[in-house]
Amino acid sequence: MLPVEVIERKRDGAELSPRDLTDFLDGFTRGDVGDYQVAAFLMAVYYRGLSDAELLALTRTILGSGRTLSFDDGGPPAVDKHSTGGVGDKVSLVLAPLLAEAGLRVPMMSGRGLGHSGGTLDKLAAIPGFRTDLGLAEFRDVLTEVGCAMIGQTPEIAPLDGRLYALRDVTATVPSIPLIAASIVAKKVAEGIGALVLDVKFGAGAFLPDREDALRLAETLVGLAGRLGLPATALLTSMEAPLGATVGNALEVREAIACLRGEGPGDLRTVTLALGSEALVAAGAATDPDAAGARLSRLLDGGGPLARFRRLVEAQGGDPRVVDDPDGLPAASFRHEVRATRSGVVSRLDARALGWAAVELGAGRRRIEDEVDPSVGLEIVTPVGAGVEAGGVVVRIHARTEEEAGRAAGRVAGAIEIADEAPPPGPLVWRRVGAGP
Amino acid sequence: MLPVEVIERKRDGAELSPRDLTDFLDGFTRGDVGDYQVAAFLMAVYYRGLSDAELLALTRTILGSGRTLSFDDGGPPAVDKHSTGGVGDKVSLVLAPLLAEAGLRVPMMSGRGLGHSGGTLDKLAAIPGFRTDLGLAEFRDVLTEVGCAMIGQTPEIAPLDGRLYALRDVTATVPSIPLIAASIVAKKVAEGIGALVLDVKFGAGAFLPDREDALRLAETLVGLAGRLGLPATALLTSMEAPLGATVGNALEVREAIACLRGEGPGDLRTVTLALGSEALVAAGAATDPDAAGARLSRLLDGGGPLARFRRLVEAQGGDPRVVDDPDGLPAASFRHEVRATRSGVVSRLDARALGWAAVELGAGRRRIEDEVDPSVGLEIVTPVGAGVEAGGVVVRIHARTEEEAGRAAGRVAGAIEIADEAPPPGPLVWRRVGAGP
Repeated sequence: MLPVEVIERKRDGAELSPRDLTDFLDGFTRGDVGDYQVAAFLMAVYYRGLSDAELLALTRTILGSGRTLSFDDGGPPAVDKHSTGGVGDKVSLVLAPLLAEAGLRVPMMSGRGLGHSGGTLDKLAAIPGFRTDLGLAEFRDVLTEVGCAMIGQTPEIAPLDGRLYALRDVTATVPSIPLIAASIVAKKVAEGIGALVLDVKFGAGAFLPDREDALRLAETLVGLAGRLGLPATALLTSMEAPLGATVGNALEVREAIACLRGEGPGDLRTVTLALGSEALVAAGAATDPDAAGARLSRLLDGGGPLARFRRLVEAQGGDPRVVDDPDGLPAASFRHEVRATRSGVVSRLDARALGWAAVELGAGRRRIEDEVDPSVGLEIVTPVGAGVEAGGVVVRIHARTEEEAGRAAGRVAGAIEIADEAPPPGPLVWRRVGAGP
Repeated sequence: MLPVEVIERKRDGAELSPRDLTDFLDGFTRGDVGDYQVAAFLMAVYYRGLSDAELLALTRTILGSGRTLSFDDGGPPAVDKHSTGGVGDKVSLVLAPLLAEAGLRVPMMSGRGLGHSGGTLDKLAAIPGFRTDLGLAEFRDVLTEVGCAMIGQTPEIAPLDGRLYALRDVTATVPSIPLIAASIVAKKVAEGIGALVLDVKFGAGAFLPDREDALRLAETLVGLAGRLGLPATALLTSMEAPLGATVGNALEVREAIACLRGEGPGDLRTVTLALGSEALVAAGAATDPDAAGARLSRLLDGGGPLARFRRLVEAQGGDPRVVDDPDGLPAASFRHEVRATRSGVVSRLDARALGWAAVELGAGRRRIEDEVDPSVGLEIVTPVGAGVEAGGVVVRIHARTEEEAGRAAGRVAGAIEIADEAPPPGPLVWRRVGAGP
């Protein structure tokens, strides 16, 4: 079938055979199918979706474009966690050493932040010296030594995904559930892990704010991973407000370290434990999620995961002293307080608006090529549901200059709502999608 | 607005400002907007359409990408005819000299055939020596001397259209009414003509087979041309069966010459006179279409248009002797008759299937880069509505070899239906769309 016929069939809503879809994508890899043809195809997929068989063929082709790792070596079960992205989401930094402490292996491959969403790689890069660009051999060494390792996407894994994502990013075809699912699942299957836990966000700061959309994505992800032999469980977690009390890379590392010390805000710990207990169950290391959660909670309070994080930082070239003294992390020179304009209860902190305010400060990227400043960001002093007096501090801005703080302050102020009464709390973990118990 | 935001807005069905749309397209011309971005945009337009204001802005931008001619020199009114394409449509070859004979100027810019549709340029190229690649100065000279001139698209006129069409052709975004309308109208406005007559085809062999779709296209074309100051009238004419009795370039030239002699099949003459009388009225050279039609009919029988066609051929470098002796045209060496499998009345000759059969013989192009053989094609011996005995000839194939004839014969046979009774004749000219009387 000619490339234009493949596009035409998808345009008209007909189902493509796995062979035709694979040939089309292989043609792209070889250079016989133009990026303009793939762009038109992706837009048609945006409107028409993909059948289960098409989605499987797409994912297999992305997977097959690169190497597949394997951890079937009789060692501890290998698991990974993937989040669909949000604001203040530093769960990975806590979860990886926690699960390693619980006896699993966590070969974690993460991404950089884009738009209002942060990325684990940017948070790790706030630790002086920390390298996320390890080669696959070094990655394995760290994993063997520490039990967890955290790197970015490597060119050996699913290179077609990188090319497709680059096209989607500039052609307004990113927000397509099947395209998102294929991208995530192909990369995770290529990691060779034995189980996957997915944190699918919903709410203002989520990639898919609508809960039902997020649920569809979760179901698609879990189903697709299962068909490719990777047991997966998804939790749908709230991203209405930022997760935890900080947004911005060094600030978030500091908060993750506090959580590893057993301190820190409850929502971060709750989500981390929920995802962690699902990971233990999925990996076959526990049968009851509640018991697994209690075990992880005890581990966290025991300090083992913190020590393991210190070893991880050291093994990946970072300065381990910051784990004990977070003042060694980069810090912004200018602080600015955004205060309550009335007395009452903070009823909303819009995660998306706060995410964009952080980008404006330099904590994130408008475009892929932007540089990130690890020091800047936001500190939530009064969380949703807490009371505040008029003039009390709600959010503290960490900025490079007064001018930049001032620019972000307007956006931050617009993200804050104060009401007479505390709003009914929404669910932090709304639903679970998975085949397991 | 970033290019990706323009695509996103169109994707979501929002209306783009003329400025944003123009900036996007100008960026494409400059190279700042990638062809992959335009491809995704065109696919979004395929699904979402364009508002009147967007369509106007797109057409103006295509128009403004090149030169605009002018015939406001006090000379005779300049008119052109455009057909949306079909099988056996040789109307232009008759109409241009006929309207010139009636006192108009006809600066005609035509296209090449693609897929099952033929193109005027390919038909003219069947005349030995005929050049359709005149420069604009030479084009004007021929027009002044003969009253009509027939060339292909020149690079000076609407170059953006050529780039957009090339992308549409390989991204399955050709069949979009607003994109078709912008392409046609921009080029015709750029010709500097004072009036335009459109032949919008419907039926099996038409680009838009459905009558109502064709009507929407006609309305879009007439409205858009009017908003750009070009008075236009459209006739919706049938392309269920091929127009006239031949399909294939030299065969069609021969048939056009017969029509210019006052001979030839009634449907070709009927459509030519209908379009011609609309042209006379649109150009202000007549007020009553019926009277104009009668006048053109007399002219055709008088031989003046034939003599003018001979002058046109000579002025554009062609061999004028073929006008008097069409046996000088290229002819295929092999003939093969497709015969009736039963007695009855020919109830259908599927124009699309016959068009593809002609392509298979070499008379047309599957892809833009294919070569065309002027000699090959089809001759309809028994038209729709005529009786035939079992074994009687319905279509005569003109081929290069017996093998090629044999391959086409199956397709031709499949295009023929024979019934017990003549079908009720459909309208040849179904409707008229225009502002005039």
